[in-house]
Amino acid sequence: MYNPFDPYNTKLSYIEKKNEILYSGKAKTLFKTNDPYVLIQHFNDDATAFNGKKKDVISNKGIYNNISSIIFSHLHFKNINTHFLGRLNDREMLVSRVDIYPIEVVVRNIVAGSLSKRLGIEEGKIVNFPIIEYYYKNDELDDPMVISDHIFGLGLIKDFDKSTLELITNLAYHVNYILKEFFEKRNILLVDMKLEFGFEHNRKFTVLADEISPDTCRLWDMTTNEKLDKDRFRRDLGGVEESYKEILNRLL
Amino acid sequence: MYNPFDPYNTKLSYIEKKNEILYSGKAKTLFKTNDPYVLIQHFNDDATAFNGKKKDVISNKGIYNNISSIIFSHLHFKNINTHFLGRLNDREMLVSRVDIYPIEVVVRNIVAGSLSKRLGIEEGKIVNFPIIEYYYKNDELDDPMVISDHIFGLGLIKDFDKSTLELITNLAYHVNYILKEFFEKRNILLVDMKLEFGFEHNRKFTVLADEISPDTCRLWDMTTNEKLDKDRFRRDLGGVEESYKEILNRLL
Repeated sequence: MYNPFDPYNTKLSYIEKKNEILYSGKAKTLFKTNDPYVLIQHFNDDATAFNGKKKDVISNKGIYNNISSIIFSHLHFKNINTHFLGRLNDREMLVSRVDIYPIEVVVRNIVAGSLSKRLGIEEGKIVNFPIIEYYYKNDELDDPMVISDHIFGLGLIKDFDKSTLELITNLAYHVNYILKEFFEKRNILLVDMKLEFGFEHNRKFTVLADEISPDTCRLWDMTTNEKLDKDRFRRDLGGVEESYKEILNRLL
Repeated sequence: MYNPFDPYNTKLSYIEKKNEILYSGKAKTLFKTNDPYVLIQHFNDDATAFNGKKKDVISNKGIYNNISSIIFSHLHFKNINTHFLGRLNDREMLVSRVDIYPIEVVVRNIVAGSLSKRLGIEEGKIVNFPIIEYYYKNDELDDPMVISDHIFGLGLIKDFDKSTLELITNLAYHVNYILKEFFEKRNILLVDMKLEFGFEHNRKFTVLADEISPDTCRLWDMTTNEKLDKDRFRRDLGGVEESYKEILNRLL
């Protein structure tokens, strides 16, 4: 297995997938390998929304969500540190092992979804500058929005300090800048996206992790404003599979 | 009428209340006077909670809420610029006319109420430093929490800039520092409070405004942690009148 992304390239040819699951999420599974620092991120066909209250299976969704590999690969070429080590096959990518910080960073270029509802502003309004929000990852609490004061005033997260929050915020701006342009070249509007970061065990620093796909971004066709993302599933608009496929085709 | 607080003292003796209402809120009314820069803030006995969904009349509440006069008077002696011009009588204070910014600033010293529920942290936890939150005043939207990015990224508020948000944030910290000590000397814990600020027509600068009372603060007895504030009404704990009276007595 040749891998242009991995700093430990020599080792990678020996990577073998173990039948041992480290983490099983709503739409993906992380498998261990023979290298304790390397995992295999497998995308399945499950679709969930509203904290798991809405569920379905979308055929081939796991394949389309490997769009993540293309995006992480592009970010690698733009010198963003990520957990991505390479695309393995249709449904799998090789990633380094990280401890994910329980903070979702949402970047918004256009008003949509919860922001529109909470503040009574119509979907489609372009913001004056990218808006960054933090959400505390906690299923029981339905991932509430938090501010820096909550995180540090309440000591919400162990081993997480203000400089790390600043770092991931700056990374989020930077990733947004890169991907906005990347999508625009493919006639796609990057409306908003959810990013996750974590501490990498091997290199011992903070990297971008998780996935970046139509499940975690709002993506609209630039000409028609047609939604080509998970909102088609959330709002029962139909054509989920076709939209994800369309995004993949434009990115290939 | 003698008034030690007013910078335009000579004029105040001529102030006459007009039977003309400028603003009628849930628990108070603002009357015009013969001076366009001066208003009379009248506290009534209505109690409301949850954006007006819960309502009652608490006898003499308006008198107890004139606790505001005592607190604003103390803040005046501590050199905080406020709209307060003086206490008129049991239910009324004289204030300068301000345009209230539609942002509520909440300062928290101890976890309680919505913060406890949203983040699953038990009431009574002492925070590492005062937590400051902003809420967008909008009855239809149920006063959603907002961050600076929302206010300026969406242009939520006309004629309101980042330096004004910084100013009122710093004022909120300062007011909290002063009032925490003020209440502690009277064996009362200042758990949290909601502050409002506005632009004063006359002096043309930003001042602390609105009211500061058991309706807008959470106040607990320091020895027993007994609630002596509006939570007695919100949560049907009984003894609302007695608690407000107790606060007034400790402040006199």
